[in-house]
Amino acid sequence: MTSADLETRYRSYLDTLNERRLDDLVHYVQDELSYNGETMTRRQYQDLIAADITAIPDLIFDAEILIASVDHVACRLVFNCTPQHEFLGFSPNGERLCFAEHVFYRFRDGRIAAVWSLIDRPAIEAQLRASNKMASTGVASKESI
Amino acid sequence: MTSADLETRYRSYLDTLNERRLDDLVHYVQDELSYNGETMTRRQYQDLIAADITAIPDLIFDAEILIASVDHVACRLVFNCTPQHEFLGFSPNGERLCFAEHVFYRFRDGRIAAVWSLIDRPAIEAQLRASNKMASTGVASKESI
Repeated sequence: MTSADLETRYRSYLDTLNERRLDDLVHYVQDELSYNGETMTRRQYQDLIAADITAIPDLIFDAEILIASVDHVACRLVFNCTPQHEFLGFSPNGERLCFAEHVFYRFRDGRIAAVWSLIDRPAIEAQLRASNKMASTGVASKESI
Repeated sequence: MTSADLETRYRSYLDTLNERRLDDLVHYVQDELSYNGETMTRRQYQDLIAADITAIPDLIFDAEILIASVDHVACRLVFNCTPQHEFLGFSPNGERLCFAEHVFYRFRDGRIAAVWSLIDRPAIEAQLRASNKMASTGVASKESI
Protein backbone atom coordinates (compact mmCIF):
# COMPACT_ATOMS: atom_id res chain seq x y z
CA MET A 1 0.00 0.00 0.00
CA THR A 2 1.43 3.42 -0.90
CA SER A 3 1.35 6.37 1.48
CA ALA A 4 -1.40 7.93 -0.67
CA ASP A 5 -3.44 4.71 -0.40
CA LEU A 6 -2.97 4.63 3.37
CA GLU A 7 -4.04 8.27 3.68
CA THR A 8 -7.21 7.49 1.71
CA ARG A 9 -7.83 4.46 3.88
CA TYR A 10 -7.41 6.48 7.07
CA ARG A 11 -9.84 9.15 5.80
CA SER A 12 -12.38 6.35 5.20
CA TYR A 13 -11.80 5.21 8.78
CA LEU A 14 -12.59 8.73 10.03
CA ASP A 15 -15.75 8.77 7.87
CA THR A 16 -16.78 5.52 9.55
CA LEU A 17 -16.46 7.20 12.96
CA ASN A 18 -18.17 10.42 11.88
CA GLU A 19 -21.07 8.53 10.27
CA ARG A 20 -21.37 6.32 13.37
CA ARG A 21 -20.93 3.11 11.38
CA LEU A 22 -18.91 1.56 14.21
CA ASP A 23 -19.57 -2.04 13.15
CA ASP A 24 -17.60 -1.23 9.99
CA LEU A 25 -14.47 -0.88 12.14
CA VAL A 26 -13.85 -4.55 11.30
CA HIS A 27 -12.53 -3.29 7.95
CA TYR A 28 -10.09 -0.81 9.52
CA VAL A 29 -8.93 -2.29 12.84
CA GLN A 30 -7.15 -5.58 13.53
CA ASP A 31 -8.90 -8.15 15.77
CA GLU A 32 -6.42 -7.21 18.49
CA LEU A 33 -4.49 -3.96 18.77
CA SER A 34 -2.23 -2.03 21.10
CA TYR A 35 -3.68 1.22 22.45
CA ASN A 36 -1.20 3.42 24.31
CA GLY A 37 0.78 0.28 25.10
CA GLU A 38 -2.23 -1.75 26.31
CA THR A 39 -3.48 -4.75 24.35
CA MET A 40 -7.19 -4.73 23.60
CA THR A 41 -9.66 -6.35 21.25
CA ARG A 42 -11.32 -4.47 18.43
CA ARG A 43 -14.58 -4.73 20.38
CA GLN A 44 -13.00 -2.98 23.36
CA TYR A 45 -11.62 -0.28 21.05
CA GLN A 46 -15.07 0.13 19.50
CA ASP A 47 -16.64 0.36 22.96
CA LEU A 48 -14.19 3.14 23.91
CA ILE A 49 -15.19 5.16 20.84
CA ALA A 50 -18.88 4.42 21.43
CA ALA A 51 -18.55 5.73 25.00
CA ASP A 52 -16.92 8.94 23.72
CA ILE A 53 -19.79 9.43 21.25
CA THR A 54 -22.38 8.84 23.98
CA ALA A 55 -20.70 11.48 26.16
CA ILE A 56 -20.19 13.86 23.20
CA PRO A 57 -23.01 13.32 20.68
CA ASP A 58 -21.67 16.02 18.32
CA LEU A 59 -18.12 14.58 18.28
CA ILE A 60 -16.61 14.95 14.80
CA PHE A 61 -13.12 13.68 13.99
CA ASP A 62 -11.62 16.49 11.92
CA ALA A 63 -8.13 15.89 10.48
CA GLU A 64 -6.31 19.23 10.59
CA ILE A 65 -2.92 17.71 9.71
CA LEU A 66 -2.57 14.23 8.25
CA ILE A 67 0.67 12.53 7.23
CA ALA A 68 1.01 8.95 6.02
CA SER A 69 3.90 6.66 5.20
CA VAL A 70 3.52 3.15 3.82
CA ASP A 71 2.58 1.71 7.22
CA HIS A 72 2.08 4.62 9.65
CA VAL A 73 -0.35 7.52 9.91
CA ALA A 74 0.01 10.62 12.07
CA CYS A 75 -2.94 12.93 12.55
CA ARG A 76 -3.65 16.14 14.41
CA LEU A 77 -7.37 15.87 15.09
CA VAL A 78 -9.23 18.97 16.20
CA PHE A 79 -12.52 18.64 18.06
CA ASN A 80 -15.12 21.40 18.32
CA CYS A 81 -17.83 19.87 20.42
CA THR A 82 -20.23 20.19 23.33
CA PRO A 83 -19.81 17.29 25.76
CA GLN A 84 -23.02 16.24 27.54
CA HIS A 85 -21.64 13.71 30.01
CA GLU A 86 -18.37 13.02 31.80
CA PHE A 87 -15.52 12.26 29.38
CA LEU A 88 -11.80 11.60 29.98
CA GLY A 89 -12.49 12.26 33.65
CA PHE A 90 -13.84 15.77 32.97
CA SER A 91 -17.28 17.00 34.01
CA PRO A 92 -18.67 19.13 31.18
CA ASN A 93 -20.64 22.30 31.91
CA GLY A 94 -22.68 22.51 28.70
CA GLU A 95 -20.20 24.88 27.01
CA ARG A 96 -18.53 24.28 23.67
CA LEU A 97 -14.94 23.02 23.84
CA CYS A 98 -12.12 23.02 21.30
CA PHE A 99 -9.17 20.71 21.78
CA ALA A 100 -6.68 18.64 19.80
CA GLU A 101 -5.53 15.03 19.77
CA HIS A 102 -2.15 14.06 18.30
CA VAL A 103 -2.33 10.43 17.33
CA PHE A 104 -0.04 7.93 15.61
CA TYR A 105 -1.18 4.64 14.09
CA ARG A 106 0.71 1.61 12.83
CA PHE A 107 -1.17 -0.33 10.16
CA ARG A 108 -0.72 -4.01 9.30
CA ASP A 109 -2.38 -5.41 6.18
CA GLY A 110 -4.39 -2.22 5.86
CA ARG A 111 -5.83 -2.33 9.37
CA ILE A 112 -4.80 -0.50 12.56
CA ALA A 113 -2.52 -2.61 14.75
CA ALA A 114 -1.30 0.05 17.21
CA VAL A 115 -2.38 3.50 18.40
CA TRP A 116 -0.45 6.10 20.41
CA SER A 117 -2.69 9.00 21.39
CA LEU A 118 -2.14 12.21 23.34
CA ILE A 119 -5.02 14.59 24.05
CA ASP A 120 -4.62 18.25 24.93
CA ARG A 121 -6.01 17.90 28.45
CA PRO A 122 -4.59 21.27 29.63
CA ALA A 123 -6.66 23.03 26.93
CA ILE A 124 -9.82 21.27 28.15
CA GLU A 125 -9.04 22.14 31.78
CA ALA A 126 -8.39 25.80 30.90
CA GLN A 127 -11.63 26.16 28.94
CA LEU A 128 -13.74 24.50 31.65
CA ARG A 129 -12.09 26.69 34.29
CA ALA A 130 -12.65 29.86 32.24
CA SER A 131 -16.30 29.15 31.50
CA ASN A 132 -17.03 28.03 35.07
CA LYS A 133 -15.43 31.25 36.35
CA MET A 134 -17.47 33.33 33.93
CA ALA A 135 -20.64 31.58 35.06
CA SER A 136 -19.87 32.16 38.75
CA THR A 137 -18.83 35.83 38.41
CA GLY A 138 -21.01 36.86 35.47
CA VAL A 139 -17.92 38.48 33.95
CA ALA A 140 -16.47 37.36 30.63
CA SER A 141 -13.02 35.83 31.01
CA LYS A 142 -10.11 37.34 29.14
CA GLU A 143 -8.79 33.89 28.33
CA SER A 144 -9.37 32.90 24.74
CA ILE A 145 -8.62 29.46 23.44
CA MET B 1 12.08 18.64 -1.27
CA THR B 2 10.86 15.03 -1.18
CA SER B 3 9.47 13.40 1.95
CA ALA B 4 12.73 11.38 2.25
CA ASP B 5 14.73 14.64 2.06
CA LEU B 6 12.56 16.24 4.71
CA GLU B 7 12.93 13.23 7.00
CA THR B 8 16.73 13.46 6.65
CA ARG B 9 16.58 17.17 7.32
CA TYR B 10 14.49 16.66 10.45
CA ARG B 11 16.90 14.01 11.76
CA SER B 12 19.72 16.55 11.30
CA TYR B 13 17.65 19.03 13.31
CA LEU B 14 17.36 16.48 16.14
CA ASP B 15 21.13 15.89 15.98
CA THR B 16 21.61 19.65 16.38
CA LEU B 17 19.54 19.55 19.58
CA ASN B 18 21.18 16.38 20.92
CA GLU B 19 24.67 17.72 20.26
CA ARG B 20 23.73 21.06 21.86
CA ARG B 21 24.65 23.05 18.74
CA LEU B 22 21.72 25.41 19.31
CA ASP B 23 23.21 28.26 17.28
CA ASP B 24 22.89 25.98 14.24
CA LEU B 25 19.10 26.23 14.58
CA VAL B 26 19.36 29.10 12.10
CA HIS B 27 19.64 26.39 9.41
CA TYR B 28 16.48 24.55 10.53
CA VAL B 29 14.08 27.16 11.91
CA GLN B 30 12.56 30.22 10.21
CA ASP B 31 13.33 33.67 11.68
CA GLU B 32 9.77 33.70 13.00
CA LEU B 33 7.60 30.69 13.69
CA SER B 34 4.29 29.68 15.22
CA TYR B 35 4.56 27.49 18.33
CA ASN B 36 1.26 26.04 19.53
CA GLY B 37 -0.49 28.97 17.88
CA GLU B 38 1.79 31.64 19.37
CA THR B 39 4.15 33.65 17.17
CA MET B 40 7.75 33.73 18.37
CA THR B 41 11.21 34.47 17.04
CA ARG B 42 13.79 31.77 16.43
CA ARG B 43 15.74 33.20 19.36
CA GLN B 44 12.74 32.72 21.67
CA TYR B 45 12.34 29.15 20.39
CA GLN B 46 16.05 28.51 20.98
CA ASP B 47 15.73 29.96 24.50
CA LEU B 48 12.83 27.58 25.25
CA ILE B 49 14.93 24.58 24.21
CA ALA B 50 17.96 25.90 26.10
CA ALA B 51 15.83 26.20 29.25
CA ASP B 52 14.66 22.59 28.86
CA ILE B 53 18.27 21.44 28.52
CA THR B 54 19.32 23.42 31.60
CA ALA B 55 16.51 21.79 33.61
CA ILE B 56 17.20 18.34 32.10
CA PRO B 57 20.91 18.06 31.25
CA ASP B 58 20.55 14.48 29.93
CA LEU B 59 17.62 15.35 27.62
CA ILE B 60 17.92 13.39 24.37
CA PHE B 61 15.38 13.79 21.56
CA ASP B 62 14.73 10.21 20.45
CA ALA B 63 12.42 9.74 17.43
CA GLU B 64 10.41 6.58 18.07
CA ILE B 65 8.04 7.17 15.14
CA LEU B 66 8.81 9.65 12.36
CA ILE B 67 6.65 10.37 9.32
CA ALA B 68 7.35 13.04 6.72
CA SER B 69 5.45 14.43 3.74
CA VAL B 70 6.84 17.05 1.37
CA ASP B 71 6.21 19.89 3.82
CA HIS B 72 5.19 18.36 7.17
CA VAL B 73 6.85 16.14 9.75
CA ALA B 74 5.15 14.23 12.58
CA CYS B 75 7.25 12.70 15.31
CA ARG B 76 6.63 10.68 18.47
CA LEU B 77 9.59 11.63 20.62
CA VAL B 78 10.35 9.54 23.68
CA PHE B 79 12.38 10.99 26.53
CA ASN B 80 14.22 8.92 29.13
CA CYS B 81 15.77 11.48 31.39
CA THR B 82 16.46 12.68 34.91
CA PRO B 83 15.29 16.29 35.35
CA GLN B 84 17.36 18.34 37.78
CA HIS B 85 15.29 21.51 37.98
CA GLU B 86 11.65 22.53 37.52
CA PHE B 87 10.37 21.87 33.97
CA LEU B 88 6.92 22.30 32.42
CA GLY B 89 5.71 23.34 35.86
CA PHE B 90 6.82 20.05 37.45
CA SER B 91 9.20 19.77 40.41
CA PRO B 92 11.52 16.82 39.78
CA ASN B 93 12.52 14.48 42.61
CA GLY B 94 15.79 13.15 41.19
CA GLU B 95 14.15 10.03 39.73
CA ARG B 96 14.35 8.97 36.10
CA LEU B 97 11.27 9.77 33.99
CA CYS B 98 10.01 8.38 30.70
CA PHE B 99 7.46 10.34 28.69
CA ALA B 100 6.46 11.07 25.11
CA GLU B 101 5.88 14.16 23.00
CA HIS B 102 3.72 14.04 19.87
CA VAL B 103 4.75 16.92 17.65
CA PHE B 104 3.83 18.16 14.18
CA TYR B 105 5.94 20.60 12.15
CA ARG B 106 5.21 22.57 9.00
CA PHE B 107 8.33 23.37 7.01
CA ARG B 108 8.76 26.29 4.56
CA ASP B 109 11.83 26.40 2.33
CA GLY B 110 13.40 23.61 4.41
CA ARG B 111 13.01 25.38 7.74
CA ILE B 112 10.40 24.96 10.50
CA ALA B 113 7.61 27.54 10.22
CA ALA B 114 5.09 26.06 12.66
CA VAL B 115 5.07 23.59 15.56
CA TRP B 116 2.15 21.89 17.30
CA SER B 117 3.30 19.95 20.35
CA LEU B 118 1.55 17.84 22.97
CA ILE B 119 3.46 16.33 25.89
CA ASP B 120 2.27 13.37 27.93
CA ARG B 121 1.87 15.33 31.15
CA PRO B 122 -0.31 12.65 32.84
CA ALA B 123 2.59 10.15 32.47
CA ILE B 124 4.97 12.61 34.16
CA GLU B 125 2.47 13.28 36.96
CA ALA B 126 1.89 9.55 37.54
CA GLN B 127 5.61 8.75 37.70
CA LEU B 128 6.37 11.63 40.09
CA ARG B 129 3.42 10.60 42.28
CA ALA B 130 4.51 6.94 42.30
CA SER B 131 8.14 7.66 43.17
CA ASN B 132 7.22 10.27 45.79
CA LYS B 133 4.83 7.75 47.38
CA MET B 134 7.51 5.07 47.35
CA ALA B 135 9.94 7.47 49.01
CA SER B 136 7.44 8.41 51.73
CA THR B 137 6.27 4.85 52.49
CA GLY B 138 9.46 2.94 51.70
CA VAL B 139 7.31 0.47 49.72
CA ALA B 140 7.79 -0.10 46.01
CA SER B 141 4.82 1.04 43.97
CA LYS B 142 3.01 -1.43 41.75
CA GLU B 143 2.61 1.20 39.06
CA SER B 144 4.94 0.69 36.14
CA ILE B 145 5.20 3.15 33.28
